[in-house]
Amino acid sequence: MRFCFGRSVLPIFAGMDLPVVPLAAATEVADVLVDLFVVLLAAKVGDEVFKRIGQPALVGEILAGILVGPSVFGLVDIGEALRVFSELGVVLLLFWVGLETRLSDLREVGRSSVLIGIIGGAIPFGAGLMLGLARGTDLTETIFLASALVATSIGITSAVMVSVGALGTRASRAILGAAVVDDVIALLLLSIAGGLATEGEVDLWTIITVVVLALGFVAFFTLGGVRVARRWPKLLDAPRFAESPLLPAVLLCLGLAAVAAQIGLAAIIGAFLAGAIVAETKDREQVREEVAPLYAFFPPFFFALIGAQVDLETLASLSALGLLLLVTAIAFITKFAGAWLGALGLGRRDAITVGIGMIPRGEVGIVVASLGLTTGVFSEKLFAVIVGMSILTTLVAPTLLRHRLEGLGHGGRNG
Amino acid sequence: MRFCFGRSVLPIFAGMDLPVVPLAAATEVADVLVDLFVVLLAAKVGDEVFKRIGQPALVGEILAGILVGPSVFGLVDIGEALRVFSELGVVLLLFWVGLETRLSDLREVGRSSVLIGIIGGAIPFGAGLMLGLARGTDLTETIFLASALVATSIGITSAVMVSVGALGTRASRAILGAAVVDDVIALLLLSIAGGLATEGEVDLWTIITVVVLALGFVAFFTLGGVRVARRWPKLLDAPRFAESPLLPAVLLCLGLAAVAAQIGLAAIIGAFLAGAIVAETKDREQVREEVAPLYAFFPPFFFALIGAQVDLETLASLSALGLLLLVTAIAFITKFAGAWLGALGLGRRDAITVGIGMIPRGEVGIVVASLGLTTGVFSEKLFAVIVGMSILTTLVAPTLLRHRLEGLGHGGRNG
Repeated sequence: MRFCFGRSVLPIFAGMDLPVVPLAAATEVADVLVDLFVVLLAAKVGDEVFKRIGQPALVGEILAGILVGPSVFGLVDIGEALRVFSELGVVLLLFWVGLETRLSDLREVGRSSVLIGIIGGAIPFGAGLMLGLARGTDLTETIFLASALVATSIGITSAVMVSVGALGTRASRAILGAAVVDDVIALLLLSIAGGLATEGEVDLWTIITVVVLALGFVAFFTLGGVRVARRWPKLLDAPRFAESPLLPAVLLCLGLAAVAAQIGLAAIIGAFLAGAIVAETKDREQVREEVAPLYAFFPPFFFALIGAQVDLETLASLSALGLLLLVTAIAFITKFAGAWLGALGLGRRDAITVGIGMIPRGEVGIVVASLGLTTGVFSEKLFAVIVGMSILTTLVAPTLLRHRLEGLGHGGRNG
Repeated sequence: MRFCFGRSVLPIFAGMDLPVVPLAAATEVADVLVDLFVVLLAAKVGDEVFKRIGQPALVGEILAGILVGPSVFGLVDIGEALRVFSELGVVLLLFWVGLETRLSDLREVGRSSVLIGIIGGAIPFGAGLMLGLARGTDLTETIFLASALVATSIGITSAVMVSVGALGTRASRAILGAAVVDDVIALLLLSIAGGLATEGEVDLWTIITVVVLALGFVAFFTLGGVRVARRWPKLLDAPRFAESPLLPAVLLCLGLAAVAAQIGLAAIIGAFLAGAIVAETKDREQVREEVAPLYAFFPPFFFALIGAQVDLETLASLSALGLLLLVTAIAFITKFAGAWLGALGLGRRDAITVGIGMIPRGEVGIVVASLGLTTGVFSEKLFAVIVGMSILTTLVAPTLLRHRLEGLGHGGRNG
């Protein structure tokens, strides 16, 4: 019958065919409330457990996500709302990082960032091409696979940097700048791969448009936005617009994230730039203080959902496991090597930190894998392998990075 | 082709068939980011404009919602994510109200609350039955129509009470208590109407189960939860669970809201009880401070979405407009009369305040109308009329209530 609960997670109601009409919420929304609760609770528990055993909290949140996801207990359905919460999680994460960044600091490491982005993208891409040739797959699949190895998930590294208080270091700034370069390269590669997958050919003109739009967006807001904020530091001034600068700041973040996503960049690039612009206004401290609870609420959904997307069943064969380990090793070593090479100008110590910091593929690898699956380029198995690789690089790198940063003297949140 | 934007709101991209692969977000999520931005911006602008002309901010937010909704400019698609944001908006609103409430204060006005709930429900219900008889509709439609007139949207009244600083008054407490009673009655009526609509009969046993569950939930958490919080005021204690009591408190709120929704009550009843429980712990002040930004972020989605659901086109006929005015007048007068009668024990002054405070139907009326439409009981026209009535009562009551409260000496946020 129509009014039954689609799915009840409360054991006492399981099997009871309650003909209840939920009053203030459609059943769909009522079920999403349960999903939000389960994901947030699991992430929080994973977070606390991992903090207590001295491991990065976000690793605990990802593992908790694997547990509640379809692979293990199947407690949550990943629908539109959860995906949006996850996206807002990483958007707020990068907004937060932007608030802590002065763009002038990025300019200082600009050359290194470009090198890290380009070499750190080229080596994994080349390795991916070779792997495809060795496996004998066709050109489109090979390019897709190679592209999946390219892009770094800056969200993961940022979260580690925030938690050990290393966000202001030169290595951290170089990584942030490289993430922007990296994202433009990934966009370029995916435009090519997408064109091949759907049209069978590459339209040069379209690709030029895409890249020019992306570069234009970054340049316009990096130079223009910051200049505006510097000239009018009372841009978000409280009594003029609102009771507090929070909503104007959040609107700027959402707006730039939405524009970035619409022109094909990652939404987080827009959020990062919005944070950097707000950081130049006189309301920086108040915005930081008031954004903090949003920053505590949303990002756990991002980390848990990364975990929830792993498909353990498809990976449970010898050939899939073998391929997973091979792809992960390639992703790990080639990104480290490329980023390290690109960062050598910063000195050997920082180069190693940057190399580790660029390793996690996180949600970016998962998005590329999803595109490969929906366009029919990837098999279920290759999809599961790429997602597995994204999660493995994401699980291992934070622990390495934290040890490295603590070894270099960044001891804790206030370090 | 596959990678195009489903819908681009940026004029420069309109018509451009960009073959872009959004990198860090599926197209769906990228579009939702735009929707969230548009709704939040519109609500904030409506809010500020109405504050400046001395009108209740939430009325401005609702009108802004009408403008961006499908009826006027059609700038947003109301999908799952927006509905969840809206629901979390009213959930956080009532959590906030719960934080400001001592349940012992509610017990003091308990008898009046029960009377307000019952008489304030019975008179509109009776009037609805008579209207149905006069229109000659069948029993199921008549009962549905009458049920739609019953339930008050406590979210609207609470927001006005918060904004003029009248949350601690006796009238305000009586309204909060009455909202709980009111919701149990509405649940009972909708179980009956739902059974009639889908099965053609009413199963007494099921209805008893539903009501016992609902009453049990409220009693258990009102008595048990508060007792637990009083015995262990360090329930959410920061160092024990987490860095701050925010996430434990938000989890309690989400959890009770989800359970309430699952047993058929409004999610906001659970959120209100969660707030009242947290209010008894020693972390009350810190939770209040840290929930404030979430309280600023989510509720605008709730108010704007109420507006976005109005269907001006269907209402644009003389017969629809006439019916709308008739139904609105009945909803307005009968609820005022019933609640006023029930509140007479509190004295004439408070009785008038309570009568006005119970008038808005808000999201509750819209939910009932949606159920009527999806079960085929309501025509498109009757659906639009009930939604229109919900919005009209919601638009008029706050202005009346604010004038009344300010007349009684509640002058502003700190009043």
